[in-house]
Amino acid sequence: MAAAAPPPPPSPAPEAPNDVPQGSTPRGHPLFARIRLAHPTDVPHIHKLIHQMAVFERLSDQCIATEASLSSTLFTSPPFQSFTIFVLEVSHTPFVEHLQYNNPAYPPITKVVNLDLPINDPDRDLFRSNGGVLGGDACVAGFVLFFPNYSTFLAKPGFYIEDLFVRECYRRKGLGKMLLSAVAKQAVKMGSGGFAGSLVMLSVLMLAPSSSLR
Amino acid sequence: MAAAAPPPPPSPAPEAPNDVPQGSTPRGHPLFARIRLAHPTDVPHIHKLIHQMAVFERLSDQCIATEASLSSTLFTSPPFQSFTIFVLEVSHTPFVEHLQYNNPAYPPITKVVNLDLPINDPDRDLFRSNGGVLGGDACVAGFVLFFPNYSTFLAKPGFYIEDLFVRECYRRKGLGKMLLSAVAKQAVKMGSGGFAGSLVMLSVLMLAPSSSLR
Repeated sequence: MAAAAPPPPPSPAPEAPNDVPQGSTPRGHPLFARIRLAHPTDVPHIHKLIHQMAVFERLSDQCIATEASLSSTLFTSPPFQSFTIFVLEVSHTPFVEHLQYNNPAYPPITKVVNLDLPINDPDRDLFRSNGGVLGGDACVAGFVLFFPNYSTFLAKPGFYIEDLFVRECYRRKGLGKMLLSAVAKQAVKMGSGGFAGSLVMLSVLMLAPSSSLR
Repeated sequence: MAAAAPPPPPSPAPEAPNDVPQGSTPRGHPLFARIRLAHPTDVPHIHKLIHQMAVFERLSDQCIATEASLSSTLFTSPPFQSFTIFVLEVSHTPFVEHLQYNNPAYPPITKVVNLDLPINDPDRDLFRSNGGVLGGDACVAGFVLFFPNYSTFLAKPGFYIEDLFVRECYRRKGLGKMLLSAVAKQAVKMGSGGFAGSLVMLSVLMLAPSSSLR
Protein backbone atom coordinates (compact mmCIF):
# COMPACT_ATOMS: atom_id res chain seq x y z
CA MET A 1 0.00 0.00 0.00
CA ALA A 2 1.32 3.36 -0.93
CA ALA A 3 1.95 5.45 2.09
CA ALA A 4 -0.23 8.50 2.44
CA ALA A 5 1.60 11.71 1.80
CA PRO A 6 2.95 12.85 5.12
CA PRO A 7 1.39 15.99 6.52
CA PRO A 8 3.43 19.09 6.00
CA PRO A 9 5.70 19.72 8.96
CA PRO A 10 4.34 22.26 11.39
CA SER A 11 5.69 25.69 10.78
CA PRO A 12 8.21 26.33 13.49
CA ALA A 13 7.69 29.44 15.53
CA PRO A 14 10.17 32.05 14.40
CA GLU A 15 13.14 32.04 16.73
CA ALA A 16 15.54 34.77 17.63
CA PRO A 17 18.91 34.19 15.99
CA ASN A 18 21.52 32.93 18.43
CA ASP A 19 24.51 34.20 16.57
CA VAL A 20 25.39 37.51 15.04
CA PRO A 21 23.69 37.41 11.65
CA GLN A 22 25.56 38.62 8.62
CA GLY A 23 23.84 41.64 7.20
CA SER A 24 20.49 41.06 8.89
CA THR A 25 18.76 43.48 11.19
CA PRO A 26 17.72 41.98 14.53
CA ARG A 27 14.22 42.91 15.67
CA GLY A 28 13.32 44.91 18.78
CA HIS A 29 16.26 46.07 20.85
CA PRO A 30 19.10 43.66 20.19
CA LEU A 31 21.68 43.15 22.90
CA PHE A 32 24.87 41.58 21.64
CA ALA A 33 26.52 39.38 24.28
CA ARG A 34 30.03 37.95 24.19
CA ILE A 35 31.84 35.52 26.52
CA ARG A 36 35.61 35.41 26.42
CA LEU A 37 38.57 34.56 28.64
CA ALA A 38 39.42 37.30 31.12
CA HIS A 39 42.46 39.38 30.24
CA PRO A 40 44.72 41.28 32.69
CA THR A 41 43.24 44.54 31.40
CA ASP A 42 39.84 43.38 32.76
CA VAL A 43 41.03 43.44 36.38
CA PRO A 44 39.49 46.84 37.29
CA HIS A 45 36.09 45.60 36.08
CA ILE A 46 36.48 42.18 37.73
CA HIS A 47 37.38 43.95 40.96
CA LYS A 48 34.20 46.04 40.83
CA LEU A 49 32.08 42.98 40.00
CA ILE A 50 33.51 41.05 42.97
CA HIS A 51 32.68 43.92 45.30
CA GLN A 52 29.14 44.16 43.88
CA MET A 53 28.78 40.41 44.45
CA ALA A 54 29.97 40.83 48.06
CA VAL A 55 27.34 43.55 48.60
CA PHE A 56 24.68 41.27 47.05
CA GLU A 57 25.67 38.46 49.43
CA ARG A 58 25.83 40.88 52.39
CA LEU A 59 29.45 39.88 52.93
CA SER A 60 31.16 43.09 51.89
CA ASP A 61 33.05 43.22 55.20
CA GLN A 62 34.82 40.00 54.13
CA CYS A 63 35.83 41.28 50.71
CA ILE A 64 39.37 42.62 50.82
CA ALA A 65 40.43 41.94 47.23
CA THR A 66 42.20 44.84 45.53
CA GLU A 67 43.09 45.40 41.90
CA ALA A 68 46.73 44.79 42.79
CA SER A 69 46.10 41.52 44.65
CA LEU A 70 43.84 40.26 41.85
CA SER A 71 46.39 41.20 39.19
CA SER A 72 49.17 39.32 40.94
CA THR A 73 47.19 36.10 41.47
CA LEU A 74 44.58 35.66 38.74
CA PHE A 75 46.72 34.94 35.71
CA THR A 76 49.39 32.60 37.08
CA SER A 77 48.27 29.43 35.25
CA PRO A 78 47.15 28.66 31.70
CA PRO A 79 43.37 28.75 31.30
CA PHE A 80 41.43 25.64 32.41
CA GLN A 81 44.44 24.10 34.20
CA SER A 82 43.68 26.01 37.37
CA PHE A 83 41.11 28.72 38.19
CA THR A 84 39.75 30.47 35.10
CA ILE A 85 37.52 33.52 34.58
CA PHE A 86 35.11 34.07 31.70
CA VAL A 87 34.02 37.68 31.25
CA LEU A 88 30.57 38.54 29.87
CA GLU A 89 30.39 41.67 27.72
CA VAL A 90 27.31 43.29 26.20
CA SER A 91 26.97 45.84 23.45
CA HIS A 92 24.29 47.55 21.39
CA THR A 93 26.35 46.91 18.27
CA PRO A 94 27.95 43.68 17.02
CA PHE A 95 31.36 42.87 18.49
CA VAL A 96 34.39 43.40 16.37
CA GLU A 97 37.12 40.78 16.56
CA HIS A 98 40.23 41.99 18.29
CA LEU A 99 43.62 40.30 18.46
CA GLN A 100 43.84 40.84 22.21
CA TYR A 101 40.93 38.46 22.76
CA ASN A 102 41.79 35.91 20.08
CA ASN A 103 43.12 33.40 22.60
CA PRO A 104 43.47 30.07 20.78
CA ALA A 105 42.60 28.30 24.05
CA TYR A 106 39.10 29.75 23.89
CA PRO A 107 37.67 31.62 20.91
CA PRO A 108 35.00 34.05 22.20
CA ILE A 109 31.37 33.02 21.81
CA THR A 110 28.61 35.48 20.92
CA LYS A 111 24.84 35.59 21.06
CA VAL A 112 22.10 38.13 20.32
CA VAL A 113 19.33 38.65 22.84
CA ASN A 114 16.29 40.46 21.45
CA LEU A 115 14.70 42.66 24.10
CA ASP A 116 11.34 44.40 24.05
CA LEU A 117 12.77 47.42 25.83
CA PRO A 118 16.28 48.87 25.89
CA ILE A 119 18.29 48.43 29.09
CA ASN A 120 19.11 51.45 31.15
CA ASP A 121 22.57 50.79 32.54
CA PRO A 122 23.54 53.57 34.96
CA ASP A 123 27.07 52.15 35.29
CA ARG A 124 27.79 51.72 31.60
CA ASP A 125 30.72 54.14 31.58
CA LEU A 126 32.16 52.58 34.75
CA PHE A 127 32.21 49.15 33.10
CA ARG A 128 33.16 50.21 29.57
CA SER A 129 35.41 47.46 28.24
CA ASN A 130 38.29 47.54 25.83
CA GLY A 131 35.91 46.31 23.17
CA GLY A 132 34.04 49.56 23.67
CA VAL A 133 37.16 51.66 23.81
CA LEU A 134 38.10 50.17 20.45
CA GLY A 135 35.13 51.64 18.67
CA GLY A 136 31.99 49.94 19.98
CA ASP A 137 29.97 50.60 23.11
CA ALA A 138 30.78 47.29 24.85
CA CYS A 139 30.74 47.04 28.61
CA VAL A 140 31.36 44.23 31.10
CA ALA A 141 28.13 42.80 32.52
CA GLY A 142 29.25 39.77 34.53
CA PHE A 143 31.72 36.96 35.07
CA VAL A 144 32.10 33.34 36.12
CA LEU A 145 35.08 31.87 37.98
CA PHE A 146 35.65 28.11 37.90
CA PHE A 147 38.41 25.58 38.37
CA PRO A 148 39.09 21.91 37.62
CA ASN A 149 37.84 19.39 40.15
CA TYR A 150 37.46 15.63 40.31
CA SER A 151 34.62 13.29 41.28
CA THR A 152 36.04 10.21 42.98
CA PHE A 153 32.68 8.42 42.78
CA LEU A 154 32.56 8.87 39.00
CA ALA A 155 36.34 8.92 38.40
CA LYS A 156 35.79 11.99 36.25
CA PRO A 157 37.44 15.39 36.11
CA GLY A 158 35.14 18.38 35.75
CA PHE A 159 34.76 22.03 36.63
CA TYR A 160 33.64 23.54 39.92
CA ILE A 161 31.93 26.92 39.60
CA GLU A 162 32.95 29.07 42.54
CA ASP A 163 31.40 32.40 41.55
CA LEU A 164 28.90 33.61 38.98
CA PHE A 165 27.66 37.19 38.85
CA VAL A 166 25.62 39.28 36.42
CA ARG A 167 25.09 43.00 37.06
CA GLU A 168 21.59 43.85 38.23
CA CYS A 169 20.27 45.58 35.12
CA TYR A 170 21.26 42.63 32.92
CA ARG A 171 19.57 39.91 35.00
CA ARG A 172 16.63 37.74 33.89
CA LYS A 173 17.68 37.86 30.26
CA GLY A 174 19.39 34.47 30.02
CA LEU A 175 22.92 35.85 30.42
CA GLY A 176 23.71 33.88 33.61
CA LYS A 177 22.53 30.75 31.83
CA MET A 178 24.79 31.70 28.92
CA LEU A 179 27.77 31.83 31.31
CA LEU A 180 26.86 28.46 32.88
CA SER A 181 26.40 26.97 29.44
CA ALA A 182 29.81 28.24 28.33
CA VAL A 183 31.50 26.44 31.24
CA ALA A 184 29.51 23.26 30.57
CA LYS A 185 30.41 23.34 26.88
CA GLN A 186 34.07 23.77 27.72
CA ALA A 187 33.88 20.76 30.06
CA VAL A 188 32.31 18.68 27.28
CA LYS A 189 34.93 19.94 24.82
CA MET A 190 37.75 18.92 27.13
CA GLY A 191 35.97 15.64 27.78
CA SER A 192 36.50 14.66 24.19
CA GLY A 193 40.26 15.04 24.62
CA GLY A 194 42.54 14.63 27.55
CA PHE A 195 39.81 15.05 30.13
CA ALA A 196 38.18 11.75 29.18
CA GLY A 197 34.69 12.81 30.21
CA SER A 198 33.94 15.90 32.21
CA LEU A 199 31.14 17.27 34.28
CA VAL A 200 30.28 20.60 35.76
CA MET A 201 29.57 20.83 39.47
CA LEU A 202 26.65 23.19 39.49
CA SER A 203 24.96 21.83 42.55
CA VAL A 204 27.13 23.72 45.02
CA LEU A 205 26.24 26.95 43.30
CA MET A 206 22.56 26.15 43.09
CA LEU A 207 22.01 24.55 46.45
CA ALA A 208 24.42 26.25 48.78
CA PRO A 209 25.49 29.57 47.32
CA SER A 210 27.11 30.77 50.51
CA SER A 211 28.34 27.51 52.03
CA SER A 212 31.93 27.92 50.97
CA LEU A 213 34.52 30.28 52.38
CA ARG A 214 35.39 33.13 50.04
CA MET B 1 69.14 46.42 91.06
CA ALA B 2 70.27 42.98 90.14
CA ALA B 3 67.45 40.93 88.82
CA ALA B 4 66.45 37.98 90.93
CA ALA B 5 67.42 34.70 89.42
CA PRO B 6 64.53 33.60 87.27
CA PRO B 7 62.67 30.58 88.51
CA PRO B 8 63.61 27.40 86.75
CA PRO B 9 61.34 26.79 83.78
CA PRO B 10 58.59 24.30 84.48
CA SER B 11 59.51 20.83 83.43
CA PRO B 12 57.58 20.15 80.25
CA ALA B 13 55.55 17.01 80.22
CA PRO B 14 57.32 14.42 78.11
CA GLU B 15 55.87 14.43 74.63
CA ALA B 16 55.67 11.71 72.06
CA PRO B 17 58.17 12.30 69.28
CA ASN B 18 56.56 13.52 66.09
CA ASP B 19 59.17 12.29 63.69
CA VAL B 20 60.90 9.01 63.30
CA PRO B 21 63.67 9.18 65.92
CA GLN B 22 67.13 8.05 64.99
CA GLY B 23 68.05 5.03 67.08
CA SER B 24 65.44 5.61 69.79
CA THR B 25 62.77 3.13 70.84
CA PRO B 26 59.24 4.57 70.89
CA ARG B 27 57.15 3.61 73.92
CA GLY B 28 53.91 1.59 73.93
CA HIS B 29 52.74 0.39 70.53
CA PRO B 30 54.23 2.75 67.99
CA LEU B 31 52.38 3.26 64.72
CA PHE B 32 54.53 4.80 62.01
CA ALA B 33 52.51 7.00 59.66
CA ARG B 34 53.61 8.40 56.31
CA ILE B 35 51.94 10.82 53.89
CA ARG B 36 53.12 10.90 50.30
CA LEU B 37 51.88 11.73 46.81
CA ALA B 38 49.73 9.01 45.31
CA HIS B 39 51.43 6.88 42.68
CA PRO B 40 49.74 4.99 39.81
CA THR B 41 50.50 1.72 41.63
CA ASP B 42 48.22 2.93 44.47
CA VAL B 43 45.10 2.88 42.27
CA PRO B 44 43.77 -0.51 43.51
CA HIS B 45 43.94 0.77 47.12
CA ILE B 46 42.50 4.19 46.23
CA HIS B 47 39.66 2.42 44.43
CA LYS B 48 38.84 0.35 47.53
CA LEU B 49 39.05 3.44 49.79
CA ILE B 50 36.65 5.38 47.53
CA HIS B 51 34.15 2.52 47.68
CA GLN B 52 34.46 2.30 51.49
CA MET B 53 33.85 6.06 51.62
CA ALA B 54 30.75 5.65 49.44
CA VAL B 55 29.43 2.98 51.81
CA PHE B 56 30.17 5.26 54.79
CA GLU B 57 28.20 8.09 53.14
CA ARG B 58 25.40 5.69 52.12
CA LEU B 59 25.94 6.64 48.50
CA SER B 60 27.42 3.43 47.21
CA ASP B 61 24.80 3.29 44.43
CA GLN B 62 26.36 6.48 43.03
CA CYS B 63 29.91 5.18 43.06
CA ILE B 64 30.82 3.82 39.65
CA ALA B 65 34.57 4.45 39.68
CA THR B 66 36.68 1.52 38.49
CA GLU B 67 40.41 0.91 38.71
CA ALA B 68 40.63 1.51 34.96
CA SER B 69 38.68 4.79 35.01
CA LEU B 70 40.71 6.06 37.97
CA SER B 71 44.00 5.08 36.32
CA SER B 72 43.16 6.94 33.14
CA THR B 73 42.10 10.18 34.85
CA LEU B 74 43.95 10.64 38.16
CA PHE B 75 47.47 11.34 36.97
CA THR B 76 46.97 13.65 34.01
CA SER B 77 48.42 16.82 35.60
CA PRO B 78 51.51 17.57 37.68
CA PRO B 79 50.79 17.52 41.43
CA PHE B 80 49.19 20.64 42.94
CA GLN B 81 48.37 22.17 39.51
CA SER B 82 45.10 20.30 39.34
CA PHE B 83 43.54 17.62 41.57
CA THR B 84 46.08 15.84 43.79
CA ILE B 85 45.90 12.81 46.08
CA PHE B 86 47.93 12.28 49.23
CA VAL B 87 48.02 8.66 50.43
CA LEU B 88 48.33 7.82 54.13
CA GLU B 89 50.31 4.69 54.96
CA VAL B 90 50.86 3.10 58.37
CA SER B 91 53.37 0.52 59.52
CA HIS B 92 54.57 -1.18 62.71
CA THR B 93 58.15 -0.56 61.63
CA PRO B 94 59.83 2.64 60.42
CA PHE B 95 59.43 3.43 56.74
CA VAL B 96 62.34 2.86 54.44
CA GLU B 97 62.96 5.45 51.75
CA HIS B 98 62.20 4.23 48.29
CA LEU B 99 63.04 5.87 45.01
CA GLN B 100 59.51 5.37 43.71
CA TYR B 101 58.16 7.78 46.31
CA ASN B 102 60.98 10.32 46.27
CA ASN B 103 58.99 12.82 44.22
CA PRO B 104 60.85 16.14 44.39
CA ALA B 105 57.49 17.92 44.25
CA TYR B 106 56.62 16.51 47.68
CA PRO B 107 59.05 14.61 49.91
CA PRO B 108 56.99 12.23 52.10
CA ILE B 109 56.34 13.30 55.69
CA THR B 110 56.36 10.84 58.60
CA LYS B 111 55.13 10.79 62.17
CA VAL B 112 55.03 8.27 65.03
CA VAL B 113 51.79 7.79 66.95
CA ASN B 114 52.23 5.99 70.28
CA LEU B 115 49.21 3.84 71.02
CA ASP B 116 48.26 2.13 74.29
CA LEU B 117 46.96 -0.90 72.41
CA PRO B 118 47.91 -2.36 69.06
CA ILE B 119 45.44 -1.96 66.20
CA ASN B 120 43.68 -4.98 64.83
CA ASP B 121 43.37 -4.34 61.11
CA PRO B 122 41.29 -7.10 59.51
CA ASP B 123 42.02 -5.71 56.02
CA ARG B 124 45.77 -5.31 56.42
CA ASP B 125 46.61 -7.76 53.63
CA LEU B 126 44.01 -6.19 51.32
CA PHE B 127 45.62 -2.77 51.71
CA ARG B 128 49.27 -3.85 51.84
CA SER B 129 51.22 -1.14 50.06
CA ASN B 130 54.36 -1.26 48.01
CA GLY B 131 56.25 -0.03 51.06
CA GLY B 132 55.17 -3.29 52.70
CA VAL B 133 55.94 -5.40 49.68
CA LEU B 134 59.42 -3.96 49.75
CA GLY B 135 60.28 -5.41 53.12
CA GLY B 136 58.12 -3.64 55.73
CA ASP B 137 54.53 -4.24 56.76
CA ALA B 138 53.12 -0.95 55.47
CA CYS B 139 49.52 -0.66 54.41
CA VAL B 140 47.34 2.14 53.07
CA ALA B 141 45.05 3.61 55.75
CA GLY B 142 43.49 6.65 54.06
CA PHE B 143 43.71 9.44 51.51
CA VAL B 144 42.84 13.04 50.83
CA LEU B 145 41.95 14.51 47.43
CA PHE B 146 42.24 18.26 46.89
CA PHE B 147 42.60 20.78 44.08
CA PRO B 148 43.54 24.43 43.62
CA ASN B 149 40.80 26.98 44.07
CA TYR B 150 40.56 30.75 44.36
CA SER B 151 38.85 33.11 46.77
CA THR B 152 37.65 36.19 44.90
CA PHE B 153 36.88 38.02 48.16
CA LEU B 154 40.47 37.54 49.38
CA ALA B 155 42.15 37.45 45.95
CA LYS B 156 44.02 34.37 47.12
CA PRO B 157 44.59 30.96 45.61
CA GLY B 158 44.25 28.00 47.93
CA PHE B 159 43.25 24.35 48.06
CA TYR B 160 39.77 22.88 48.18
CA ILE B 161 39.54 19.51 49.93
CA GLU B 162 37.01 17.37 48.11
CA ASP B 163 37.46 14.04 49.91
CA LEU B 164 39.19 12.83 53.06
CA PHE B 165 38.90 9.27 54.29
CA VAL B 166 40.62 7.17 56.99
CA ARG B 167 39.83 3.46 57.32
CA GLU B 168 37.67 2.64 60.34
CA CYS B 169 40.24 0.90 62.54
CA TYR B 170 42.66 3.84 62.20
CA ARG B 171 40.21 6.60 63.18
CA ARG B 172 40.42 8.78 66.31
CA LYS B 173 44.22 8.64 66.35
CA GLY B 174 44.98 12.01 64.77
CA LEU B 175 45.60 10.60 61.29
CA GLY B 176 42.79 12.57 59.61
CA LYS B 177 44.18 15.72 61.22
CA MET B 178 47.62 14.73 59.91
CA LEU B 179 46.18 14.58 56.36
CA LEU B 180 44.46 17.97 56.75
CA SER B 181 47.62 19.44 58.18
CA ALA B 182 49.69 18.13 55.26
CA VAL B 183 47.40 19.93 52.78
CA ALA B 184 47.49 23.13 54.86
CA LYS B 185 51.30 23.02 55.09
CA GLN B 186 51.55 22.56 51.33
CA ALA B 187 49.29 25.60 50.83
CA VAL B 188 51.51 27.65 53.13
CA LYS B 189 54.61 26.36 51.36
CA MET B 190 53.22 27.38 47.98
CA GLY B 191 52.09 30.66 49.49
CA SER B 192 55.69 31.62 50.02
CA GLY B 193 56.36 31.26 46.30
CA GLY B 194 54.21 31.74 43.27
CA PHE B 195 50.95 31.31 45.12
CA ALA B 196 51.43 34.62 46.97
CA GLY B 197 49.42 33.54 49.99
CA SER B 198 47.25 30.48 50.10
CA LEU B 199 44.46 29.12 52.18
CA VAL B 200 42.78 25.80 52.57
CA MET B 201 39.03 25.58 52.19
CA LEU B 202 38.13 23.27 55.02
CA SER B 203 34.72 24.68 55.73
CA VAL B 204 32.96 22.80 52.95
CA LEU B 205 34.33 19.56 54.30
CA MET B 206 33.48 20.38 57.89
CA LEU B 207 30.08 21.95 57.43
CA ALA B 208 28.54 20.26 54.46
CA PRO B 209 30.21 16.92 53.83
CA SER B 210 27.58 15.74 51.39
CA SER B 211 26.53 19.00 49.75
CA SER B 212 28.59 18.55 46.61
CA LEU B 213 27.99 16.22 43.72
CA ARG B 214 30.41 13.33 43.56
